[in-house]
Amino acid sequence: MPKIAVVYHSGYGHTQRMAQAVAEGAGADLLAIDADGNLPEGGWETLAAADAIILGSPTYMGSVSWQFKKFVDASSKPWYTQAWKDKLFAGFTNSASLNGDKSSTLTYMFTLAMQHGGIWVSQGVLPSNSKAAQRNDANYLGSYSGAMAQSPSDAGAAEMAAGDLENARKLGQRVVEVAGKFNR
Amino acid sequence: MPKIAVVYHSGYGHTQRMAQAVAEGAGADLLAIDADGNLPEGGWETLAAADAIILGSPTYMGSVSWQFKKFVDASSKPWYTQAWKDKLFAGFTNSASLNGDKSSTLTYMFTLAMQHGGIWVSQGVLPSNSKAAQRNDANYLGSYSGAMAQSPSDAGAAEMAAGDLENARKLGQRVVEVAGKFNR
Amino acid sequence: MPKIAVVYHSGYGHTQRMAQAVAEGAGADLLAIDADGNLPEGGWETLAAADAIILGSPTYMGSVSWQFKKFVDASSKPWYTQAWKDKLFAGFTNSASLNGDKSSTLTYMFTLAMQHGGIWVSQGVLPSNSKAAQRNDANYLGSYSGAMAQSPSDAGAAEMAAGDLENARKLGQRVVEVAGKFNR
Amino acid sequence: MPKIAVVYHSGYGHTQRMAQAVAEGAGADLLAIDADGNLPEGGWETLAAADAIILGSPTYMGSVSWQFKKFVDASSKPWYTQAWKDKLFAGFTNSASLNGDKSSTLTYMFTLAMQHGGIWVSQGVLPSNSKAAQRNDANYLGSYSGAMAQSPSDAGAAEMAAGDLENARKLGQRVVEVAGKFNR
Repeated sequence: MPKIAVVYHSGYGHTQRMAQAVAEGAGADLLAIDADGNLPEGGWETLAAADAIILGSPTYMGSVSWQFKKFVDASSKPWYTQAWKDKLFAGFTNSASLNGDKSSTLTYMFTLAMQHGGIWVSQGVLPSNSKAAQRNDANYLGSYSGAMAQSPSDAGAAEMAAGDLENARKLGQRVVEVAGKFNR
Repeated sequence: MPKIAVVYHSGYGHTQRMAQAVAEGAGADLLAIDADGNLPEGGWETLAAADAIILGSPTYMGSVSWQFKKFVDASSKPWYTQAWKDKLFAGFTNSASLNGDKSSTLTYMFTLAMQHGGIWVSQGVLPSNSKAAQRNDANYLGSYSGAMAQSPSDAGAAEMAAGDLENARKLGQRVVEVAGKFNR
Repeated sequence: MPKIAVVYHSGYGHTQRMAQAVAEGAGADLLAIDADGNLPEGGWETLAAADAIILGSPTYMGSVSWQFKKFVDASSKPWYTQAWKDKLFAGFTNSASLNGDKSSTLTYMFTLAMQHGGIWVSQGVLPSNSKAAQRNDANYLGSYSGAMAQSPSDAGAAEMAAGDLENARKLGQRVVEVAGKFNR
Repeated sequence: MPKIAVVYHSGYGHTQRMAQAVAEGAGADLLAIDADGNLPEGGWETLAAADAIILGSPTYMGSVSWQFKKFVDASSKPWYTQAWKDKLFAGFTNSASLNGDKSSTLTYMFTLAMQHGGIWVSQGVLPSNSKAAQRNDANYLGSYSGAMAQSPSDAGAAEMAAGDLENARKLGQRVVEVAGKFNR
C-alpha cells in the first residue's frame, strides 16, 4: 500500500473536517499543524516516508494561513536536498465565499510542490454545473486543481456541505489510486 | 467625464450581457471582439482615447477565449510604446461552474494590464457569504479582483443571475468613480 | 516505451527549438500548431494515444499565444468526456525577458492540465543561482513548474542559450522517466 | 503630499535594502515586520493613514515569508470594515533565482490588495531585454506587476545589483506620483 500523509492547518475546524475526509479516502496519516505553525512530533519523518503528501489549509486573506506557511518555510530543509522529489502532491482548502480566492491557495500549493520536484494530482471530478446541480453534489464548487469547500462565514464546522466533504474524500481516494499505479 | 471603454468577447451571449451591465454602470463605450478575434472599426482609437479599459471574456478551458487572446496579442503594438500606460483597468468573466477557474482569467487580465503599465481597480464589493446569502445578491460568488458571473452549462444568456449582473454594473460604476478622482 | 507528444506553437522559431530539445529528451512526437491555431492532420489522434502531453508556447503579453489558446479551446472536446484524464502533462515557454511573465504561462498550462484531469510533472532541476552560476547552466533561469528559455528581443532562434535548451531536454527526459514508472 | 507606507519583512537584509530604495523613491515611512511577524508600535495606525501601501517580502518557497503572512492574516481586521478600500497598493520581492517564483509572490500581494478593495499600481518600466542589456539596468529581470530583485544564494545584502535597487526606487517614485494624481 502506498503511504499517504495529509498535512494541514485548521483555524476553526472546517479544514480539519476536510482533512479527515481526505484521509479517509486515502487511508492516510493525519498531521495537524498547530496554532504556532509546528508539526506534531515525528511529523517530518512521516512526510519523508510518504509516497504522496496532501496539503490542506484554510484560505485566509487570499492564500494559506501563516501557520501553514511557517510549516512550508521549514520545508526548505528537505527542499535543499530535494528529499521530496518525485512524491505525489495534492491540495485542499476551505473558505467562507464560493470563490474567495481559494484558487489562489491551491495554485500556491502547486507552486510549492513544484519547488520540491513533485508531481501534482488533479481533483479529477467534473464540476456539477447544470441547472439541476445541487449544493450537496460532489464538486458543486467547480474546482479542478484540488478540493474546495465553502462554509458560510457564520457556519460552524458541523454545518459543512456534504458534497464538499464527499469531494474531499474523492481527492484522497484518487491520490491513493494514482500512487498505487506509480512505481517510485 | 472620464472615457471608459469595455472591450470583450462573448461566445454565447452571457459575457455580452455582463459587458452591457458593466457599460451601463460606467457610461462606457462597448467594443465587441468578433468570432475571428478582431475589433470593430475604430476600436483601437477608442481604446487609445480611453481613461479606463474594462476587459471581458468568457472563461474557456481555464482562461480567456482565443478570440480575446488574439486581441491581446495585437495589443503588443500599443504595448511597444507603452501607449496605454497609466490607464485604469478592470475585468469580468463568466463560466458555467461556480469557480471553474474564473480566478485564473481575472488574474491573467491583471497580468496583461501590468504589461501595459496600467493601474488595476478591484471589484470593491464584499462577498455575500453568510448563511442568509441569496443567489441574487451582488458578489454572491465572492470575487475581489473583478466581476464574476456563473451561468449553468445548460442556461441561456436570458437566464443569468440578477446579482451577477448587478455586480457587473457595480464594477462599471466603481471604475468610472475611480477614474473621476484620478487626474491623468 | 511510453508515448509522449509535444504540442507547441512557435512564432519566430525559439519555442520550436525548445520543442525539439524536449522531444529529443523524451523520444516524443512533435505536433506543431500552425499560424492559424490548427493541429497537423492526425494531431488529435496522437494526443489521444499519448501517455504524456508536453505543452509549449511562447509567452506573448503574459500568457500563451492566441494560436496555442485556439488549440486549447478546441480541446474542450476531449475535456467533455475527460478523454485525457490521468495523462501526464508538463510545459515549456520562451520569452524575451528573464521573467516576462513566463511563470504566468506555465501556471496557465497547469490550470489547463487540471481541467483535463491530468497529472503535472515538475522540471525537477534545482536552479543554478549561486554567484558562480553561468548563463549556460541548466535552469539558470530558476524555474520549477516547467522549462523556461529567455531569448533577447533582438536575438534569433539560432542564438538561444545552450543551458535553456539543455534544460528543455532534461524536461523531456524527466517526463519519459516518470511516464515509465507510471502504470496507467 | 500623499502619505506612503512601505511594510515589509526581511530575513537576511536583501528585502530591507529594497524597502529602503522604495521608501527613498516614495518619500515613505518604513514599517519592518519583525522575526515573529509583528508590526512595530504605531504600525497599524500608519497603515490606516496611508494613501498608498507598498508591500515587500522575500520569496520563500514560492510566496511571501510566514512572518509577512502573519501580518497579512492580522490585516483581516481592517479588511472586515474595508478600512483600506481605495488605497493604492504595490509590491516588491527578492529571491536567489532569476525567476524562483517571485511572480507568485507579487501575484499574491495583488490578490491581497484586491481583498482590501485596493487599486494596484504596476512597475511601469519596460524590461531591459535586448542583447545589449546589462545586469545593472533597471528592470533587467523583466517584471511588470512590481519590483523584483535577485541576489545569488551566497551573496550578502551588500552585494545586491544596483539596477534592482534602482528599479525598486523607481517603483516608490511611481507610486507617489500616481498617488499625487489621485484625489481620494
